[in-house]
Amino acid sequence: MTRGRARDTITSASPGTPQRRKGTNTVTEQLPPDVIAQLTGMDPAITPELVATSWALLKPFHDKVGYNAPKVDRDLAYGDHERQRLDVHASGQEAGAPVLVFVHGGGFVGGDKHVPGTPMYDHIGAWAVRNGWVGVTITYRLAPEYTWPSGAQDVAAAVRWVRDNIAAYGGDPSRIVLAGHSAGCVHVASFLAGHATAGQDRTGQDSGWLDGVRGAGLLSGFYQVPDGAGRGELEVVYFGGRPSAEVSTLPGLLNSGIPLIFAVAERDPEFIHTQAAGLTAAWFARKGTIPNVIFSEGHNHISQIGSVGVDDLALGAQLARFVNRVTEP
Amino acid sequence: MTRGRARDTITSASPGTPQRRKGTNTVTEQLPPDVIAQLTGMDPAITPELVATSWALLKPFHDKVGYNAPKVDRDLAYGDHERQRLDVHASGQEAGAPVLVFVHGGGFVGGDKHVPGTPMYDHIGAWAVRNGWVGVTITYRLAPEYTWPSGAQDVAAAVRWVRDNIAAYGGDPSRIVLAGHSAGCVHVASFLAGHATAGQDRTGQDSGWLDGVRGAGLLSGFYQVPDGAGRGELEVVYFGGRPSAEVSTLPGLLNSGIPLIFAVAERDPEFIHTQAAGLTAAWFARKGTIPNVIFSEGHNHISQIGSVGVDDLALGAQLARFVNRVTEP
Repeated sequence: MTRGRARDTITSASPGTPQRRKGTNTVTEQLPPDVIAQLTGMDPAITPELVATSWALLKPFHDKVGYNAPKVDRDLAYGDHERQRLDVHASGQEAGAPVLVFVHGGGFVGGDKHVPGTPMYDHIGAWAVRNGWVGVTITYRLAPEYTWPSGAQDVAAAVRWVRDNIAAYGGDPSRIVLAGHSAGCVHVASFLAGHATAGQDRTGQDSGWLDGVRGAGLLSGFYQVPDGAGRGELEVVYFGGRPSAEVSTLPGLLNSGIPLIFAVAERDPEFIHTQAAGLTAAWFARKGTIPNVIFSEGHNHISQIGSVGVDDLALGAQLARFVNRVTEP
Repeated sequence: MTRGRARDTITSASPGTPQRRKGTNTVTEQLPPDVIAQLTGMDPAITPELVATSWALLKPFHDKVGYNAPKVDRDLAYGDHERQRLDVHASGQEAGAPVLVFVHGGGFVGGDKHVPGTPMYDHIGAWAVRNGWVGVTITYRLAPEYTWPSGAQDVAAAVRWVRDNIAAYGGDPSRIVLAGHSAGCVHVASFLAGHATAGQDRTGQDSGWLDGVRGAGLLSGFYQVPDGAGRGELEVVYFGGRPSAEVSTLPGLLNSGIPLIFAVAERDPEFIHTQAAGLTAAWFARKGTIPNVIFSEGHNHISQIGSVGVDDLALGAQLARFVNRVTEP
């Protein structure tokens, strides 16, 4: 007799007794219904309040699960700018492991790979390590000083760094998966669409820019940049007045041979859903199938990425399945 | 150091040692990559060969996990016809548990709730019980003898039976979730769209036909029946020449207040993807969000439903999350 049991069947965590066995991810973490209700009850607009409130709701669960990989090397330079830095999260025991490179959001003008005293975004690195991968979290140059295609260029530079250096951390440079959230998703998509060298003389450019990239997770971002009045304030800051056809990634993504998985949060703001609907229509028209879109039930734009490690079925478990599949040796 | 470890992180099963603890679903079951490769490598057309080959590939894994609930009551009559029968799967220890009612596929002209000596579809009932629910698997009348809306009527009659009888099996008649696969999906959708009383004098009809139904999983079915030459052979057998506007469920689903989750298999035939793309567009136009569509990566039309219990992240885990959420007391 157990009214409460249905809720418990995929929850084993209780306070103070983390139940993960080392090296396994049993997908047991789940948030309680009252937290989900609060996360979905807020106005979906992406405001500082949404960020603060969502993370405040999630932090106790991250504290319980833990968000520090056994070995974290911070602020490694993948370029000359002070924002061209990355952290490597590892077990110290891997060799030849898949590598997950995570690119944070922040509206093109903010955000960081690591906010001390919070799980942001060490929790992605720790979760990668629990899955048997090496995790890399990167920071990149910001608008208004650095505009399109600086994000794509920084992703490209970080990928080069990973290819050149990750073996020393137990990672396999030929098995890299990228994941970006929000503006970070836009940068990853922009990289995949070939924008890193946009407008440049390609003579002498690295021709193997995609080498080792096995797939990408594009999480709550956008793929078609509106023209004119439809372009949002922060999009104007990053893309300027460049035409949609130049800066949108959808055509490039459809042409790309890289396996992709997408995600949208149930309570993402409407423009993200609009983008996902447009993506689905364009993808279907081109490929005859719908794209693989994870619908992060019970989450808003912020809590979706915050859910990784504490609400496995919202995003993390599906993303992990994808990473494991595309990095099969 | 483990090249093979990524694959193992969400796999704990090894031959002969099922690792599920009673009453928990730790989402650990995963199929090996070579099986996934075979399932996705086949022609996606829904043929007897696809059915036989897919189930043959899955059966050893079901044999290992087990697909018999502790208590199975078979062939209970929910109507006078010999096909109006259902099986109840229970632990014998529940009280007030959510109830999952599963409606099998079979192209409107075939299929059964239970094929002796196989996991079909006892595995759904056993999985429901492992999740702490009561499982109900139903069979229904078939075309060509019984045509539209007989499927919707049989779902309605089965739901009535569940409301009246399930408490004796530990189920809560106010917490019912329906799930249908393929033609069974069409019947569940048809029930939700109100077709059970289509064309009848509604005087004296049961007004509480949806009572207790908290949500539905619509798995690899279709929602808009094509007119004219676009209508498939089996659709003609079931729907006859009735116009699309009369027999399609999409308008009714969009009007329904019942929470819905959908699923499409990566290797579903194109017409299923076409339907999902159309659903996404119509849903977005009406609601401003995309629908919750589980993309069953690595599966075909048959193995998608066969994956439940042996490849949890393909469908079962997301479906379970939905069932638990909509049946919160």
